[in-house]
Amino acid sequence: MTDDTPPRKTPTACVLIIGNEILSGRTQDINLNYIAKGLAERGVRLKEARVIPDICDVIVETVNEVRAQYDYVFTTGGIGPTHDDITAECIAKAFGVKLVLNEEIRAMMLSRYPQGQLNEARLRMAHTPEGATLVPNPISGPPGFRIGNVFVMAGVPRIAQGMFDAIKHTLAGGPPILARTVLCNLPEGTIAKGLGEIQSRYADIDIGSYPTFARGKPETNLVSRGLDRDRLDRAAAEISALIRELGGDPIDIA
Amino acid sequence: MTDDTPPRKTPTACVLIIGNEILSGRTQDINLNYIAKGLAERGVRLKEARVIPDICDVIVETVNEVRAQYDYVFTTGGIGPTHDDITAECIAKAFGVKLVLNEEIRAMMLSRYPQGQLNEARLRMAHTPEGATLVPNPISGPPGFRIGNVFVMAGVPRIAQGMFDAIKHTLAGGPPILARTVLCNLPEGTIAKGLGEIQSRYADIDIGSYPTFARGKPETNLVSRGLDRDRLDRAAAEISALIRELGGDPIDIA
Repeated sequence: MTDDTPPRKTPTACVLIIGNEILSGRTQDINLNYIAKGLAERGVRLKEARVIPDICDVIVETVNEVRAQYDYVFTTGGIGPTHDDITAECIAKAFGVKLVLNEEIRAMMLSRYPQGQLNEARLRMAHTPEGATLVPNPISGPPGFRIGNVFVMAGVPRIAQGMFDAIKHTLAGGPPILARTVLCNLPEGTIAKGLGEIQSRYADIDIGSYPTFARGKPETNLVSRGLDRDRLDRAAAEISALIRELGGDPIDIA
Repeated sequence: MTDDTPPRKTPTACVLIIGNEILSGRTQDINLNYIAKGLAERGVRLKEARVIPDICDVIVETVNEVRAQYDYVFTTGGIGPTHDDITAECIAKAFGVKLVLNEEIRAMMLSRYPQGQLNEARLRMAHTPEGATLVPNPISGPPGFRIGNVFVMAGVPRIAQGMFDAIKHTLAGGPPILARTVLCNLPEGTIAKGLGEIQSRYADIDIGSYPTFARGKPETNLVSRGLDRDRLDRAAAEISALIRELGGDPIDIA
């Protein structure tokens, strides 16, 4: 790379978690955290996530809102064989295209199910919006799909995460979003003023302050996030110096 | 209650999780699940949740969008003493009111902190939007607040959950949203058709189908949710009969 190389931009993303089971409290979502970490590694900035119910109008409207707003959209949930699995048809509706039988998926399913088992309900999973490409399913069952900037994945965590891993390398990411953590044995309120001053000198870095009582006393995790390793190192050094100045012991977790 | 009593409506709610740490993948949110369960018990339907970053314009815009759309809004995160704790000022901005020093919180903090420790940063936590009432903090630190239909709570799970528990009884809930689960040792695709037929006869009940491999083989949890215990019992009985008809063993988890 020469100095003339324009800096790569950081694309943006939104995750849509589609599922009544999350909103009812039946299920604790763990896909968002997995996807969020993967996107940061890949240099894609996750700007928003939404949990929405299995209601077609809501899915259509939300998908159309966020796909216009962000570079990438990732959906999880609602791609099985039952009546509440309506994601594929809603995505087709959002894009104004037909839901069509995908011969590749059908062939996969024919080879997977014993004769007679590939019933009408299961064949619903072989339908994708016209123009979609497939998102491999490395775990079990039919694939997800991509249409435009929207990736449609399963909800079952093992499968959702396998699908995400399978397409992660295809994302046009920017430089990885790096993090640097300093743990501090002082409460937030003690370091808040100095920390705000450091933040004001590092406009390119997001400094987050996260209190914790995990070890039975008030501690604070100070997390700097940004694209430039040197700047993060400098911010972390200033944060450590501030903590020492205030009588604390910084632990640089890196 | 007589037959003339109008049925109580089910109010709606939205949860806003405010925090870069969730979007970066640093932190796995567990507050949404807790609040979701509590709302269902209280007879409030959680219709949406969003995770948004610590960016004031985004917070203001999102709060104003969802507070107009739902009966209740619950926010978590961003109410500490550091520069990234901007929720209170953003909520004030969303409501078009001033952020003012709350003497009740200030008095609480004065009694809590040793002399000289109640610095300017900590005093930020004693500020609430004009007209707000307090949400008790039964764990540690300053309270949250309520303004209009928006409840503003901490992000640290123990505190967020304590605050939610402290205000839950004040919500004008409808009848509790009940759930009835039948576990089935058949894969989803086998029962999908019959299940869809049952769903079509129970418009007042949401039947969700959730595949699991938790016990090493494909099983399906069939969850019926609704307001009427008898109708749930009848739907569960029909689901169990369907499973038996298809050669499976239903387990009524209730």
